[in-house]
Amino acid sequence: MNIVLLDSRQTQSDIWKISSDRQIAHLNSHLAVKVGDTLKVGIRDGDRYLTEIIAVSEREVLLRPIQKEAVPAKLPVTLIVALPRPKVLRRIIMDAVTMGVQHIRLIHSYRVDKSYWQTPFLQQLEHYMTLGLEQAGDTIAPKIELHKRFKPFVEDVLPQLIDEHCPAYVAHPYTEQKMPFAIEHACTVIIGPEGGFIPYEIDLLIKNGCQAVSLGNRILRTETAIPYVLGRLFSTC
Amino acid sequence: MNIVLLDSRQTQSDIWKISSDRQIAHLNSHLAVKVGDTLKVGIRDGDRYLTEIIAVSEREVLLRPIQKEAVPAKLPVTLIVALPRPKVLRRIIMDAVTMGVQHIRLIHSYRVDKSYWQTPFLQQLEHYMTLGLEQAGDTIAPKIELHKRFKPFVEDVLPQLIDEHCPAYVAHPYTEQKMPFAIEHACTVIIGPEGGFIPYEIDLLIKNGCQAVSLGNRILRTETAIPYVLGRLFSTC
Repeated sequence: MNIVLLDSRQTQSDIWKISSDRQIAHLNSHLAVKVGDTLKVGIRDGDRYLTEIIAVSEREVLLRPIQKEAVPAKLPVTLIVALPRPKVLRRIIMDAVTMGVQHIRLIHSYRVDKSYWQTPFLQQLEHYMTLGLEQAGDTIAPKIELHKRFKPFVEDVLPQLIDEHCPAYVAHPYTEQKMPFAIEHACTVIIGPEGGFIPYEIDLLIKNGCQAVSLGNRILRTETAIPYVLGRLFSTC
Repeated sequence: MNIVLLDSRQTQSDIWKISSDRQIAHLNSHLAVKVGDTLKVGIRDGDRYLTEIIAVSEREVLLRPIQKEAVPAKLPVTLIVALPRPKVLRRIIMDAVTMGVQHIRLIHSYRVDKSYWQTPFLQQLEHYMTLGLEQAGDTIAPKIELHKRFKPFVEDVLPQLIDEHCPAYVAHPYTEQKMPFAIEHACTVIIGPEGGFIPYEIDLLIKNGCQAVSLGNRILRTETAIPYVLGRLFSTC
């Protein structure tokens, strides 16, 4: 947690109050904050501030804003991921948010177990985003959308995301063309499920405007591939 | 698991035998292999083969090698990481091995909890490496070394790893110089603990030949920073 995220309702008066059990526990046990310390605080979907702690108890921490700070810029990327196992879902949402992905779309695919769409973890996306924003020092949550049917998504939604200024790259081990690097434009990145997209799916993605590109001859797990690809694509950011 | 790793003792005759419970469970329940299927198999620290399955039971799978395959090249990098929490340790070792890191060194640092050096997870490094190699389709385990004292490591060991053809980059949020990208030479990458290196440590690293470089103004978790940095540095591989 590199900033504490507050709701705008918590920051309406001159004195702000942190009262979430999770945040208080972190501030008290992990950071051992005390009166007079400074603390970075973000207002959810708003500004970020340096604040001064003016009171600490086991139940709440009171703050006084000192000065506004810059919120880090987002990466100009839409990340499309085949819905992973529930445990992995938490991590990829947190990580994608931390790295500054602008828009996340979770899609179905042949090798996605249908039961994954029933996981209670999908009700927790808001919480994972908060953790990712607090890690990054960001305040603006990306948009997350779910697409439970592969073909309608690829044929009807995906083409609207692609144009000459915003190509779509699907990571695919069995192709000659390499994933680009150090790009200076927006793009869409598509990461398949464990075991990969099936040939029909790759063909449909290509037919609808995607470029199949390889990351080399090592097969990475979804949760490793995402930061590896974003680090590669946006190395000039 | 994209290949099954066998010990060279398991591949001395014409017919090879897989008998590890973990590997058999994966082949039977996850891949549902049957006689006549092909299977990618690596010999630990040796070659990689395409094989044909000639018998399947609940206890063992028998194989016949068909042809040799290429083992993926390593990244020319030494990864130095402040020892993370035990749960994170498993993941970073697996990921680093999967991405092809050549040499891993786990070091102490002021913000590393001393209890981490007592974790039983440190006895499991061999197993995590196997999982990483099986994910990548690799057979050659990187070298892992542990350095429980920061100062002697930085002053006595680290300078020997650095020369004009192999610089060392320490990821540090508070510096102007950016982490390079698309490099075409070997390097050493140093990733600090949760909360970062303390100023004394950064100073000592710089004094001993490291370049402090920034990844931008988002603070990534250790396990996210490693693939992000490797994707960025080795984007031409």
